[in-house]
Amino acid sequence: MAVYTEVDDDALNDFLTRYDIGEAVAFKGIAEGVENSNYLLETTEARFILTLYEKRVNPDDLPFFMGVMEDLSAANFPCPQPVKGKNRSALQTLLDKPAAIVTFLKGMSPRRPDANQCRQIGEAMARMHLALQTSSLGRPNNLSIDAWDELYDGRESVAATLAPNLATLISGDLERLHDQWPDPETLPRGIIHADLFPDNAFFLGEKFSGVIDFYFACTDMLAYDVAIALNAWCFEARGEFNMTKGRALMAGYDSVRSFTEAERKALPALIHGAAMRFFLTRLVDWTDTPADALVRPKNPVEYAEKLGFHRLARTVEDYGYMAG
Amino acid sequence: MAVYTEVDDDALNDFLTRYDIGEAVAFKGIAEGVENSNYLLETTEARFILTLYEKRVNPDDLPFFMGVMEDLSAANFPCPQPVKGKNRSALQTLLDKPAAIVTFLKGMSPRRPDANQCRQIGEAMARMHLALQTSSLGRPNNLSIDAWDELYDGRESVAATLAPNLATLISGDLERLHDQWPDPETLPRGIIHADLFPDNAFFLGEKFSGVIDFYFACTDMLAYDVAIALNAWCFEARGEFNMTKGRALMAGYDSVRSFTEAERKALPALIHGAAMRFFLTRLVDWTDTPADALVRPKNPVEYAEKLGFHRLARTVEDYGYMAG
Repeated sequence: MAVYTEVDDDALNDFLTRYDIGEAVAFKGIAEGVENSNYLLETTEARFILTLYEKRVNPDDLPFFMGVMEDLSAANFPCPQPVKGKNRSALQTLLDKPAAIVTFLKGMSPRRPDANQCRQIGEAMARMHLALQTSSLGRPNNLSIDAWDELYDGRESVAATLAPNLATLISGDLERLHDQWPDPETLPRGIIHADLFPDNAFFLGEKFSGVIDFYFACTDMLAYDVAIALNAWCFEARGEFNMTKGRALMAGYDSVRSFTEAERKALPALIHGAAMRFFLTRLVDWTDTPADALVRPKNPVEYAEKLGFHRLARTVEDYGYMAG
Repeated sequence: MAVYTEVDDDALNDFLTRYDIGEAVAFKGIAEGVENSNYLLETTEARFILTLYEKRVNPDDLPFFMGVMEDLSAANFPCPQPVKGKNRSALQTLLDKPAAIVTFLKGMSPRRPDANQCRQIGEAMARMHLALQTSSLGRPNNLSIDAWDELYDGRESVAATLAPNLATLISGDLERLHDQWPDPETLPRGIIHADLFPDNAFFLGEKFSGVIDFYFACTDMLAYDVAIALNAWCFEARGEFNMTKGRALMAGYDSVRSFTEAERKALPALIHGAAMRFFLTRLVDWTDTPADALVRPKNPVEYAEKLGFHRLARTVEDYGYMAG
């Protein structure tokens, strides 16, 4: 949580002349997200989120992220809708950084999602995948299995300090994942969110109200998105997987878009791999973040514990799946 | 700017049962203020700011701060209005910390206030002082002249590293201020804001819309509040005082509540002293803030430069004052 760039009233008012959204009446930096600077912007017409893209985002990817939100909004899937400037572009520049304004989405992120919310996020994810099936957009997933060996390389000794025997276990996991990873062409593919944690989902009362933060979205196997969500939504403390929540999430998804037989077979490896992806990127942040950084890195141990569960799981039923 | 305490949806929903303000539909930590954790809270009924008071605020002072905002709101002076819980108290506890909800105030803080805004803040400050004249509340100013020697004690060597000869100059300033400081009983007294920087003032378009952040408010000479504002609103870079802005701010104040002859005589010492107060507290923060703190301390040099101007000023006319 951080605001890296301070935007003063003069810079903001000047920026808003590029849009037809009225004049600013309130503007507050919000402590949300770790990649970019976000501001709540209220104008005489409506409320918006203004984002400045800081150096961790590749500017070349921004048209894709904007396009995903535009395609979803056009399909009435609830997410922030990019606002175009008078020059017809949703991407502008503010204080020499790429910047965009999106509509404000109401809702609260659950800290401890319950099974009902897991079911709803499964349903919503399937609707999101279907809404994006006709999209012409694409972006490779540069944080999937091909990236992992390099992410781990040179960090074995750090892993070894996190838990007994962890360095060896991770090497074994990587070997097994390379063996078991599905041929991507055999599974349904499309645009996935790739970071649909509870932080990035909104609910109003008990009802799903939207998804935010599409800055890891990419083209990949749809079931890999489910695998990421199972890791993010269905674990309790200390690596205990909650089968009821897993069942609810997969049943929700399945009720909107049925898993193929190949997906059901592939899911255990995908779930194991999704945990590996977040373990490794957290391990990198853990070792590379300077002590005086504005953002404290997340401890990779949480995902090391989840890997421990996946090592023993063999089938999708081990995660609570029941054939409809 | 920071959020020190994370409030999750369960804690928030539980907290809101103590109020009659509807249910939460949005909740975002805002990167504002350095003393407390602030959240923008939107409910089914309206928008609010929820504040958690962190350790720098003395809980015993909170009823006074709430009372000041209540008295001002009752007098229709635009400021956040504390919202009372069902138990009739504006002060509650959340995650073991004192907490309060106040109404949301629209407006933007000027980064570089112009003379027109200086005039308006002068007028608003006088209206604020008059609105509080009948208040029964009181709180001593524990950051005024009696506190300065102790704040400076032991930090002379740090001051010496900031600018050539600065340690000696500060000692001289303190001596002169003790000599010239007015007898507080000879000047109009009342409740002052004591921290009315542009950050804490809101404008909508060109028009003053309100004052926030009363957490330094106290009972003191009213003209001392003007002295603080002259330091905060009327300097350009590198210690250059802008006489046009000074004149506008004092004329605005004078047009609502006329300065007494004693106030006009005392203002140069009060202005000099106000700069000393902010120099010293910034010097303390500068030396005492750990390198890995969430908040970066403000550099005291800005106020050392302002002290340089005050050393040469002798009369209120040197700050642009013109008798109406």
